[in-house]
Amino acid sequence: MKIDVIPYASTIRRDLIENRHVIVIDVLRASSVMITALENGANAFIPVSTVEEARQKAKIFHNETILLCGERDTKTIDGFHLGNSPQAYTRDKVEGRTLIFTTSNGTLALNRLEEAAEVYIGSFINMKALVHRFLELEDVVLVCAGTNNNFSMDDAMCAALFIDEIKKEKAVLLSDLSITLLKAFQKEAGDLHLLLKDCYHLNLLKRNGFGDDVEYCLQKNSSDVVPEMRSGRIVKVN
Amino acid sequence: MKIDVIPYASTIRRDLIENRHVIVIDVLRASSVMITALENGANAFIPVSTVEEARQKAKIFHNETILLCGERDTKTIDGFHLGNSPQAYTRDKVEGRTLIFTTSNGTLALNRLEEAAEVYIGSFINMKALVHRFLELEDVVLVCAGTNNNFSMDDAMCAALFIDEIKKEKAVLLSDLSITLLKAFQKEAGDLHLLLKDCYHLNLLKRNGFGDDVEYCLQKNSSDVVPEMRSGRIVKVN
Repeated sequence: MKIDVIPYASTIRRDLIENRHVIVIDVLRASSVMITALENGANAFIPVSTVEEARQKAKIFHNETILLCGERDTKTIDGFHLGNSPQAYTRDKVEGRTLIFTTSNGTLALNRLEEAAEVYIGSFINMKALVHRFLELEDVVLVCAGTNNNFSMDDAMCAALFIDEIKKEKAVLLSDLSITLLKAFQKEAGDLHLLLKDCYHLNLLKRNGFGDDVEYCLQKNSSDVVPEMRSGRIVKVN
Repeated sequence: MKIDVIPYASTIRRDLIENRHVIVIDVLRASSVMITALENGANAFIPVSTVEEARQKAKIFHNETILLCGERDTKTIDGFHLGNSPQAYTRDKVEGRTLIFTTSNGTLALNRLEEAAEVYIGSFINMKALVHRFLELEDVVLVCAGTNNNFSMDDAMCAALFIDEIKKEKAVLLSDLSITLLKAFQKEAGDLHLLLKDCYHLNLLKRNGFGDDVEYCLQKNSSDVVPEMRSGRIVKVN
C-alpha cells in the first residue's frame, strides 16, 4: 500500500489526490463530531465552507429536518443549533436529522476533494474500524485538516497512528512526510498526551473551556463508524 | 526565539515570512553548492527560476565573469558550465565568478521570499556557523525547499538539527511542525543515515550516480560560510 500525507487543507492539490482513496483527519474536532453524530443516528452531514452558505442551504433543504452546526474560532456560531463539541451530538438531538456543517478547517478540506476516488473521515475514535476498512485498498492519501491554514500536530499524529497500525497488517510504501510523522509518533511510543502536550490547537481548545472535548477526541477506537462522502454528503454507509 | 518551519517551497506564504529571519534549506544539493562555492571564492549566486531566464541573464551581465549553473531532474543542463554537485565548485572554477543558478527546488524557494527581513542559506555542512549567527535573533522561519513541490525529509531533518542545536543555547517557542520534526529527528538520535535511508530524493540521487554528493552534503560543520541574500544575490558577507 502506497501512503502519502497532505500536511494541511490549503496544500491539497489535484495531482496528490486524483483517483486515490482519501482519509480526511480533523481530530479536534470536526472528524470526531461527524463520527459521533452518525453513530447516534444522524442522516448526513452537508459540509459547507461559509456561515452564509450554511444559512442559504438550510432554506433549500426545507423538506428535511435540518440542524445548523459548526464553529468559528472554536465557538458555536450565532443562531446555530450545535457547535463543534462531539458529545453534544446526542441521539435525542441528531437522530434522523441532516446536519449542515461549517468549521474553520475540516469542512475546507472536504470541499477540495472532488477528484478523489473515495473520501472517508478518520479520527482517533474510529481508528481500528478505519484501518480495517483500508486493508484491501492500495493507494491512500491522509489529508490533515490543520489549523488556521497551518500544520497541526493532532491531525498529523492521527495520520501517524493510521500508518503505524496498517503497517502491522500489510506492506507499505511511505512518502517522506509519512516516514517523518511515523518517526515522531514512535518517539513517544504513541503516547498522545505526551506527543500533543505543546500542540497549539489542543491548548487553545483547553484555554477556551473545551478540555472535555479534547479528552473525548483523544480516545482510541470508541466507535466503529467510518463516515464516507457520497455526492457531497458525509454519511454512514454500513 | 520563535521558530516555525515551512514544509516545502510552494507552501511559502507572505504571512508566514513577512519581516522574519528566514533560512532556506535545500540540503540535496543547492544549499550545499552555494556554501561550497562561496567558500571557494565565488562572488555571488543569482538565483533564477527557469533555464531560459538563466540564459537571458547571462547576456545582460556581460561585464561580469559569468558561469551558468544548475540542474533539472538532477542532471546538468545542456550548455551550462556546472551542475548541482557541490564538489565540482572548486576554487579554480568559481573564484571571482558570478554564478547564475537555477535548480528544480531550491531557487524556486529563494524567489518567493521578498517580504522576509533577511534570508540565509542553511545546510548540514554549515550548521554550527548558522546556529551561531542566529543566537541573537528572535523570529526564525526555516524554509524547506522540498522536492518536486513536496515535502522532502533531507531538508526537514536539517531544519530539525537547527532546532535541536539552538535549543541547547536559548529558550525556544516551537510551532507544531517544528515540534514534530524535532521528535522525528530525536527518534534516531540524530543519525542522518538512519533517518534518511528511505528518503525519496536521497535515493534518487544515489540511483543517478550522485552518491558522493549525498555523502558530502550529509557531513556536519565542514564550512563556516553562512550565505545571505542581498538585493537578489546570494553572497558571503563575512
